[in-house]
Amino acid sequence: MTLPILLAISGSLRAASSNSAVVAAARALAPPGLEVVVYEGLGDLPHFNPDLDTETPPAPVAELRRLVGAADVLVISSPEYAHGIPGVMKNALDWLVASLEFPGKPVGLINASAGSVHAQAALEEVLRTMSAELVADACVTLPWTGAKPDLAQLVETPELSNLMSVALAALARRAAGTAGET
Amino acid sequence: MTLPILLAISGSLRAASSNSAVVAAARALAPPGLEVVVYEGLGDLPHFNPDLDTETPPAPVAELRRLVGAADVLVISSPEYAHGIPGVMKNALDWLVASLEFPGKPVGLINASAGSVHAQAALEEVLRTMSAELVADACVTLPWTGAKPDLAQLVETPELSNLMSVALAALARRAAGTAGET
Repeated sequence: MTLPILLAISGSLRAASSNSAVVAAARALAPPGLEVVVYEGLGDLPHFNPDLDTETPPAPVAELRRLVGAADVLVISSPEYAHGIPGVMKNALDWLVASLEFPGKPVGLINASAGSVHAQAALEEVLRTMSAELVADACVTLPWTGAKPDLAQLVETPELSNLMSVALAALARRAAGTAGET
Repeated sequence: MTLPILLAISGSLRAASSNSAVVAAARALAPPGLEVVVYEGLGDLPHFNPDLDTETPPAPVAELRRLVGAADVLVISSPEYAHGIPGVMKNALDWLVASLEFPGKPVGLINASAGSVHAQAALEEVLRTMSAELVADACVTLPWTGAKPDLAQLVETPELSNLMSVALAALARRAAGTAGET
């Protein structure tokens, strides 16, 4: 039996990123019955250029679309840069706008910083415009305002891990539903 | 005598981009006494990664910062993708956030499409957060709702060229002021 798949995307390329820690924690905290695939290709995508979006798009773009198509649900954890979505994160979404794989995809958003309100709101607007299905119970902001949490803190601090588990459970329910439908 | 410099940035990599046409039109319509430099390096920038932002940043980043530092004023014309700033445009701004060259820089925004309201608002929020000085008279939306305008239409349609000229005159005044101060 194939398990439903959650594709987890960090919006940061920084090695010590708290968003990448969220993605790693999602794998650690995911309920049984949900396979978590971590997207590693964000930095390999070319800059979006409509002229390159032909029948044979660049290989990293094709790979992103393949992973999105194979996933039942997505989760994104993105930092905020200057009150906006990081360019590199938006660039991945720009490549998905015109794709066949993205519309209707259920998406959760795990915000790693309570101080970042603009990027989360901007992501919700962009994702809605892209016809994603925002999974309300999986769009959460971790109540963390100090130095950015690392993987150990995310997994071991109950107020963080509990909130992540609630979000992941919502995605697992949605993924099970999607998997059942297809 | 060195003329004040306007650095003009298109937020699109598309060959037939109306935003790149705006940038070209800015050069054609600029008042005497303002040198227009068109930024050509957007697609050469690496994806922003704080770990790469060391004392010797990647060469395209150093070049962008040099051009921004040498400019008295900036003008940006950006498309809107999925109700957001294009990733490739935001990526350039992400590299300027922590730069010494950007804060306080006067910036105009020429929106090539009356239907694009989200990206213009998001750019204003991001640029304010980056401590840019938004030049109010140079933040305009061209009243154009049909097929995207090309260079000839921008220069030859009075309702477009007049609005661009007003914006460019405001930037020229601001550039002259800046040049005088330094």
